[in-house]
Amino acid sequence: MERDMDQKAVPTNRHTRPHRLEDVTRWDIDTDVAVIGFGAAGSCAAIEARVAGADVHIFEVASAPGGSASWSGGEVYVGGNGGTRIQRAHGFEDSTEDLCTYLMMAGGPGADAARVRLYAENAVGHFDWLEAQGVPFKGTYLPGKWIEPTTDDTLLWSGSEAAWPFSAKAKPAPRGHTAQFKGWGGGKILMEKLCARAEALGAVVHCNSRALSLVVDKDGSVVGVVARIEGETRFVRARKGVILCAGGFIVNREMVERFAPAALACTQVVSGGNDDGSGIRMGMSVGGAAIHMDQFFATIPFFPPESLVKGIFVNARGERFINEDAYHGRVGHYVLRQPEGKAWLLVDNEIFGRPVIQPDIEVAAVGETWEEVERELGLPAGTLVHTVAEFNRNAGNGQDPLFRKAANWLRPLTEPPFAALSYCASELKAHAFTMGGLHTLPSGEVLDADGQPIAGLYAAGRTACGLPRWGEGYSSGMSLGDSTFFGRQAGLAAARR
Amino acid sequence: MERDMDQKAVPTNRHTRPHRLEDVTRWDIDTDVAVIGFGAAGSCAAIEARVAGADVHIFEVASAPGGSASWSGGEVYVGGNGGTRIQRAHGFEDSTEDLCTYLMMAGGPGADAARVRLYAENAVGHFDWLEAQGVPFKGTYLPGKWIEPTTDDTLLWSGSEAAWPFSAKAKPAPRGHTAQFKGWGGGKILMEKLCARAEALGAVVHCNSRALSLVVDKDGSVVGVVARIEGETRFVRARKGVILCAGGFIVNREMVERFAPAALACTQVVSGGNDDGSGIRMGMSVGGAAIHMDQFFATIPFFPPESLVKGIFVNARGERFINEDAYHGRVGHYVLRQPEGKAWLLVDNEIFGRPVIQPDIEVAAVGETWEEVERELGLPAGTLVHTVAEFNRNAGNGQDPLFRKAANWLRPLTEPPFAALSYCASELKAHAFTMGGLHTLPSGEVLDADGQPIAGLYAAGRTACGLPRWGEGYSSGMSLGDSTFFGRQAGLAAARR
Repeated sequence: MERDMDQKAVPTNRHTRPHRLEDVTRWDIDTDVAVIGFGAAGSCAAIEARVAGADVHIFEVASAPGGSASWSGGEVYVGGNGGTRIQRAHGFEDSTEDLCTYLMMAGGPGADAARVRLYAENAVGHFDWLEAQGVPFKGTYLPGKWIEPTTDDTLLWSGSEAAWPFSAKAKPAPRGHTAQFKGWGGGKILMEKLCARAEALGAVVHCNSRALSLVVDKDGSVVGVVARIEGETRFVRARKGVILCAGGFIVNREMVERFAPAALACTQVVSGGNDDGSGIRMGMSVGGAAIHMDQFFATIPFFPPESLVKGIFVNARGERFINEDAYHGRVGHYVLRQPEGKAWLLVDNEIFGRPVIQPDIEVAAVGETWEEVERELGLPAGTLVHTVAEFNRNAGNGQDPLFRKAANWLRPLTEPPFAALSYCASELKAHAFTMGGLHTLPSGEVLDADGQPIAGLYAAGRTACGLPRWGEGYSSGMSLGDSTFFGRQAGLAAARR
Repeated sequence: MERDMDQKAVPTNRHTRPHRLEDVTRWDIDTDVAVIGFGAAGSCAAIEARVAGADVHIFEVASAPGGSASWSGGEVYVGGNGGTRIQRAHGFEDSTEDLCTYLMMAGGPGADAARVRLYAENAVGHFDWLEAQGVPFKGTYLPGKWIEPTTDDTLLWSGSEAAWPFSAKAKPAPRGHTAQFKGWGGGKILMEKLCARAEALGAVVHCNSRALSLVVDKDGSVVGVVARIEGETRFVRARKGVILCAGGFIVNREMVERFAPAALACTQVVSGGNDDGSGIRMGMSVGGAAIHMDQFFATIPFFPPESLVKGIFVNARGERFINEDAYHGRVGHYVLRQPEGKAWLLVDNEIFGRPVIQPDIEVAAVGETWEEVERELGLPAGTLVHTVAEFNRNAGNGQDPLFRKAANWLRPLTEPPFAALSYCASELKAHAFTMGGLHTLPSGEVLDADGQPIAGLYAAGRTACGLPRWGEGYSSGMSLGDSTFFGRQAGLAAARR
């Protein structure tokens, strides 16, 4: 769900300072595992903890379950192991090594090899598990380039797999698996199934329940949580652990300013509304280390129609800066960092269109020649013209020596009139969510700044820093894949403690 | 001081978990203010706290005072208010607004307006204060473009002031003020004077003393510190506060991997050897928020000789990517992010030279024509040739429409033979220190993740996130200017508590 950055929730747990065990005079609820947040990570943590035999109480701040995931497209990024049953059915073999390589590249300089390895080796099993929980996947394949399917199809190309430099190092495969749902918003069905499953297994769900602070014993171990439940302060003992699954912090503008200021360039937040950073802050309050807090997903969905991918982006120097067939979020990050906040998508008459998501996009220049467009944009003489001429000359030969856009997106821009669609900062409607969060082991155990686990504290989903931790490397489905898979690990680890 | 990244100190306070007040059975030392680290920030904090009447004990892990600052160039970035006496003596007026604008740009998207404003309005007074402490400044002006003066001159251009885009928004002035010292390393004299002053004022200095953890009371207030002094564990009561001035974390490879992985591209660390992040970790252990932990200074000192600034950098696309007259650390960040880690500095015979700091630099290609150089580098045909031709054509007219390098550095590269000096990743010797640290108010009060002060805890210097917080925006002297000035604020604030 997208909303304006300033339509933010006002975080009401502004003071997350931990509560000392010796100051707790009563326990209102006594459980093995307390899960904070009933979204993708929280539901899966609860399911696994229940299956492992633990008592589970879930505290969800909203009045209904599902979290931000229920407003999402419902895509899960899985593959490897020869392919999911759906990948294989459509002829896509997908090796674990290729998935691993892709995820390591996608993780950027801070990629977590142990986390990536665990995920890559178990992603197909995880997909099967999601189906076993009742999440429906139609099983069909939707070719082409989409943001999310508007059909109820399953499998799509949801990242930069087929784009340079990823394609040069890992054999591409489509890995976005979307829950069966007609139109945008498959997250709704995904979360309905996962939340229902957690409840069916006996997890006790408290909605309208805001976790306020963690309870710590004299050794610094987390032994419970203080929550505001239906307006009353309640003390919750968690004998095995507290799992923070409370989302990211994109709706908390103060936190964005403090930790991820570059994300302020995005006017739209991707959130169900409660990504106020409370989970991250509670974790930090007991010494948990937050990492990669500057990183965020940012996209400018310049397609569909996919014909626009055949256009070329240029900056104020009249130069290209990215292979336009990369994932739209990767393109978005490159657009955001261009000098003076200026970028345009150049198209010719044959591929002209308006992006579905921004049909009122400003056409900054039109001309019968590229010279006219260059002049109208006020670019240094000859710059854009040279860029287009060189692009056209190479594209005519099916080549893009500078940016290596894949051949199927290469076509000379030679049919007048020509146009430049504006992706300049002043008109940009970029969409963002945060990727930084608590530093955890793949098991979900939260680590302090020394790299030591904090006993009794776990985190998953966007409260943790997971697979998605580098804005430029994101692919659709990674956040849900990460949240559901590592939510499970945290639930298991806590239950077994 | 530069050393190899792997020649790192092994941090021995691996476990910084806080100590509970009720577990302290004795106080070995009782003071108003405990200062952790006797470098630039710590010495100035101690001076101000003593002047304000507080008892001060300083705990320095090394066997001698001075910290990393004593291995530095000893440049302090000051100006504004019409100019320091030295700026004015050499005809440089420098308005507070220009300094403020420059520092805000230099701070990047996360610039701290309150901190910048306080600094800009008081920077001249701070310079006078440094002189009053006994720090010698010769008062002379050294024109040209230097990394650090090898003479004992005072005033130099130490940043990107005269370079686009800074020059377009803030009137340029030289603001690097170097302590009088012949050769590189004026930090030695700076720190001798500041440390001597702190001791003369009665601050009690404990060398060979490693702070291990903070002591907190039941409200989470910091009331002391546990330190290992000359091999013995000592409990230090700090009635007014603990000031963390223990430097950054560039020598702690685990922390760099975790928090600033992009800095791993730099093989050389700028540190006296004890920037192991212990101050930051202690702050985080009691809930202090660390911000901009991904940011770092990174430089590739490609000049002097300054003639090399007239060369042009190109990447694997044969394209330029930065105005080469920007601060060398800004150029460094741009070099580091080029695709495939490839970049070269193109020079012609007239300006050919080898950078003083890397005299064995690899000459990757030489040719009688630019076509030859392009071919030898293996670049796509015509790319480099086009770039040089356009650069030469414009430079001949004193213009650089694409990157706006200032006219005094513009000269067509037309005298064969031509050469490309390699700044490719495999041969790069980039130098780094970290810029992220504890989130503080300008007073030095450490803030938690909710933005609330932690009573009794202060930080300054690279343990805090200060003026320098954006790698691309750094200028020489900013870190020392920040450390000394905000060290003073922290000392004052703690003493007055």
